[in-house]
Amino acid sequence: MSSNSIPSVDVHAEAAARARQQQLTKPPGSLGRLEEIACWFAARLRNPVPEMPRTEIFVFAADHGVAARGVSAFPQAVTVQMLGNFARGGAAINVLASLEDCHIEVVDVGVASEESPPPGVRNERVRAGTRDLAAGEAMTKEELNTALGVGGRCARQAVQRGAQLLIAGDMGIANTTAAACLICAFSGATPEGVVGRGTGVDDAGLARKREVVRTALARARCEAPQALPVPTQEAMRILGELGGLEIAAMAGFYLESARCGVPVLLDGFISAAAALAAVAIDPAVRSWMLPSHRSAETGHGVALQALGLKPLVDLELRLGEGTGAAVTLPIVRAALALHRKMATFSEAGISGAVDKSE
Amino acid sequence: MSSNSIPSVDVHAEAAARARQQQLTKPPGSLGRLEEIACWFAARLRNPVPEMPRTEIFVFAADHGVAARGVSAFPQAVTVQMLGNFARGGAAINVLASLEDCHIEVVDVGVASEESPPPGVRNERVRAGTRDLAAGEAMTKEELNTALGVGGRCARQAVQRGAQLLIAGDMGIANTTAAACLICAFSGATPEGVVGRGTGVDDAGLARKREVVRTALARARCEAPQALPVPTQEAMRILGELGGLEIAAMAGFYLESARCGVPVLLDGFISAAAALAAVAIDPAVRSWMLPSHRSAETGHGVALQALGLKPLVDLELRLGEGTGAAVTLPIVRAALALHRKMATFSEAGISGAVDKSE
Repeated sequence: MSSNSIPSVDVHAEAAARARQQQLTKPPGSLGRLEEIACWFAARLRNPVPEMPRTEIFVFAADHGVAARGVSAFPQAVTVQMLGNFARGGAAINVLASLEDCHIEVVDVGVASEESPPPGVRNERVRAGTRDLAAGEAMTKEELNTALGVGGRCARQAVQRGAQLLIAGDMGIANTTAAACLICAFSGATPEGVVGRGTGVDDAGLARKREVVRTALARARCEAPQALPVPTQEAMRILGELGGLEIAAMAGFYLESARCGVPVLLDGFISAAAALAAVAIDPAVRSWMLPSHRSAETGHGVALQALGLKPLVDLELRLGEGTGAAVTLPIVRAALALHRKMATFSEAGISGAVDKSE
Repeated sequence: MSSNSIPSVDVHAEAAARARQQQLTKPPGSLGRLEEIACWFAARLRNPVPEMPRTEIFVFAADHGVAARGVSAFPQAVTVQMLGNFARGGAAINVLASLEDCHIEVVDVGVASEESPPPGVRNERVRAGTRDLAAGEAMTKEELNTALGVGGRCARQAVQRGAQLLIAGDMGIANTTAAACLICAFSGATPEGVVGRGTGVDDAGLARKREVVRTALARARCEAPQALPVPTQEAMRILGELGGLEIAAMAGFYLESARCGVPVLLDGFISAAAALAAVAIDPAVRSWMLPSHRSAETGHGVALQALGLKPLVDLELRLGEGTGAAVTLPIVRAALALHRKMATFSEAGISGAVDKSE
């Protein structure tokens, strides 16, 4: 990771964008969140009337030792099988990236396989899956730093080739267990309110998963509510104890994107866990994050609340891969096109609102 | 209006679409409402794996005699001024239609002007605005039938030139007052829960608007809760007493689209009032309606509940023109592309879910 600090946003461009919104041919405020989005991007693209930002999507994949405890409805082998599906363009995120004409890069940060990832998948494997987080630390300090660095390098390279908005997605059987641990640890919420069915475990699986999360939180001395902000070293410790390699890479990706002054569009439950970790490491990263959707996974709402972010849509998605972020890109495009292209009242010769004192 | 009846949807295509969704490379159900949308269109486009439907947008504009009672934040002249803005491509709906590459047609059903509508606006003016609905019937039976027919003809012509999905938007200063009357009359809700600020009236304007709606409902003998379904003749009477020319055109548009076997994407508050009137006239129209968004206007939620429809998004819009529907078109496109293009588990060689009995 670079040691640069995170820049602040351009409040002058934002104020100019707000002033423009008042002049467009519509009742003030009537475009609701689309007005907010336009002003949000004005501040971050440092332009009062920004174009649609060039967007890149990274899917970070890794395995989790805790999968052996039966916390997922799918076998661990699905992670490596899905790498092949991503490489061939058959996964949901491939379809959405293609619709939006976004560059997509799939990164193996730690899939449990003895073979190299398939052609088209970037090999950044730190180790073949984390250790079981219920039994001991998921990653060593060194492994954590390497995973953070993978994500950071991906973000920096994307920015260097012109990306102006970044999306991180995830793939990793059992990663909702690691994410639930992190969300509990960073928000102070209990496993009951955070642990959900992930890819679809049954009632027995859900009970098992809750117990695993409780055990892991106690083991890592995280069962007492933590309130953000926590000291950076404690944030790093928690992420290493309870995280995943892809989650750490996503946290590093968010931090480096913000250091480069480039905003990120958050995805779902795993993304929120990575975002909480990133905010715990450096609270300044938060102002570069735009939430996309609230997922159907229990506890995503808890995580968004801990982040203080209000999602744009709720389409009851729970797939990950970056799909929730990608599906909201056209809403961003619409918001910016309206902001740029609508006529103003004076251009259109239209009367303003009636004087309220009448 | 044609006297054809409304066809039923294709349940076989829908079942085939549901079966396909179970085979795509994602946990079953994990694409949430995007899965529902794909199956909904399969049933209505009569194709288990449908392409994105060719979409047309109609904006129906008219004035309202009740505007003279000070129920809007903008003067009545804005309706005719906005016709010019639509014709020049400067309004919000023009920007969104252009993004989606949709044909857009603006129809003057009854703007209060002595001049012809500007070039590019279709002249179907029934009369120069409705009468004041608080003092007497807004439209005569003949005017109502003419307005319904305008909407019906627009829908039929669009279908004849290949449209497969239709959107109706509205423009008309004071039309949230007429829409609030209709929503109260057809849902049985009280003005307190339905009347909102529209384009942005202040507290005094809001109180005035509520009083106007109460007066109009009593005058038209609609103050007692009506429960859908009501007899068709009573539905027509209510629409004539309390509606608007653009709202009647929208109701006729929805009815004729359904008779042609073509679905509609609903917009916001005014659209919901027209949809309730259409459902009251013929309940079979409902299964051809897809709600797009819930608007910020008080009472849109009430109307959607009365329709039994759950909106896709809530972006706090309250502009009308068809903007809420247009902004959700990319979500429909994404849902259909995912349904069509994702690999199946067998194509990708991916393991299914673990046997739940394990």
